[in-house]
Amino acid sequence: MDEVKVIEIKKSIFADNEKDADDLRKELKRKGVYLLNLMSSPGSGKTTTLIQTINRLKDKIRVAVMEADIDSDVDAVRIREATGVPSIQLHTGGMCHLDAEMTRQGLENLPPDTFDLVVLENVGNLVCPAEFDTGAVRNAMILSVPEGDDKPLKYPLMFSVCDVVVVNKTDVLPYFDFDLDKCREHVRMRNPAARVIPLCARTGEGVDAFAGWLLEEVKAWKENQ
Amino acid sequence: MDEVKVIEIKKSIFADNEKDADDLRKELKRKGVYLLNLMSSPGSGKTTTLIQTINRLKDKIRVAVMEADIDSDVDAVRIREATGVPSIQLHTGGMCHLDAEMTRQGLENLPPDTFDLVVLENVGNLVCPAEFDTGAVRNAMILSVPEGDDKPLKYPLMFSVCDVVVVNKTDVLPYFDFDLDKCREHVRMRNPAARVIPLCARTGEGVDAFAGWLLEEVKAWKENQ
Repeated sequence: MDEVKVIEIKKSIFADNEKDADDLRKELKRKGVYLLNLMSSPGSGKTTTLIQTINRLKDKIRVAVMEADIDSDVDAVRIREATGVPSIQLHTGGMCHLDAEMTRQGLENLPPDTFDLVVLENVGNLVCPAEFDTGAVRNAMILSVPEGDDKPLKYPLMFSVCDVVVVNKTDVLPYFDFDLDKCREHVRMRNPAARVIPLCARTGEGVDAFAGWLLEEVKAWKENQ
Repeated sequence: MDEVKVIEIKKSIFADNEKDADDLRKELKRKGVYLLNLMSSPGSGKTTTLIQTINRLKDKIRVAVMEADIDSDVDAVRIREATGVPSIQLHTGGMCHLDAEMTRQGLENLPPDTFDLVVLENVGNLVCPAEFDTGAVRNAMILSVPEGDDKPLKYPLMFSVCDVVVVNKTDVLPYFDFDLDKCREHVRMRNPAARVIPLCARTGEGVDAFAGWLLEEVKAWKENQ
């Protein structure tokens, strides 16, 4: 097994991240590449959800993954071993988030093929990543059942910037005080337009809905080029 | 029920947080106040663990709690209702961590009694809070079983600055791929001196060990004044 490519991300020098993110989005639009920014707490199951989702999409579209992490490359290795799609690791060197320029450094290090979908797995953190536009077409986040249905109350910005909230680990609903209706209501308070997609990445239940949404998104993005 | 006191924390102006934190620690030493900085991911069960712990300590020592949160005051209300001890909410206004000066702003807003133990529940985040010394005597963190035993590999700084790692939600060990021995090993890699205390805040199992450690710590801090 080859080693996974590890990119040491440098701190951005751009002052105007909003503009830089818009430029990156336009550039991706021209190339027909859909970038998804996936955020969550540590341990919510981002990588497992991604593996299940990619395995449903990889025969239909060309997918690549950029795994951002403070340290370690375990996630990029896992993704590549479990899906076979290109996956690189972005080391943030202690930084708690990614901005557009840092995302661009990752994109420039992907294999030179073109991809239909690139997923950026952001640093596990419900606070800082929400503050920085990465240039992605959409933001999605994963809230896992053990974290509790009150998280939209406590991390308002994260939930207001996300277009999709995946509720993961539904298989353990019987063991936790997590009310899915209450969760939907809390998400709506922060972002009335957000979709809530419950699923269980371990068993695969519900993953089709998320994969289906993503496939439609990618198609629409490429059609309107 | 009175409203809980909510403090809007202002951004610190001190450039030298290390020195400020040392000064705060000396000040707390003089007053015989033990400050514990409790950190974790969102949803790991900090508040429930605190409630169980405080209910075992409150007849032996005087305890107060400062709950830091981006927004909302649900935790401070919960703590006060479930334990009866004084509890205030610190709003960080979007900031992802607390430093010593911000902690001091909280301490100055506690009721004018003296306390033996003040617990600072830091912002739910495994990245940024680890970078700032709050002036606490000790750092503790909670890792919950659903988050996975690999977290010390991914968030090295957090685990290296913590003297105690509480492993919470042990009641759901049968439903997750979490290996307690592997977890201990990963913690040791980051900090050979750290204690690992497994417990279940929901059932109360194992909480005595954490409460016992904390009581000994508080006593030792006050004895050597």
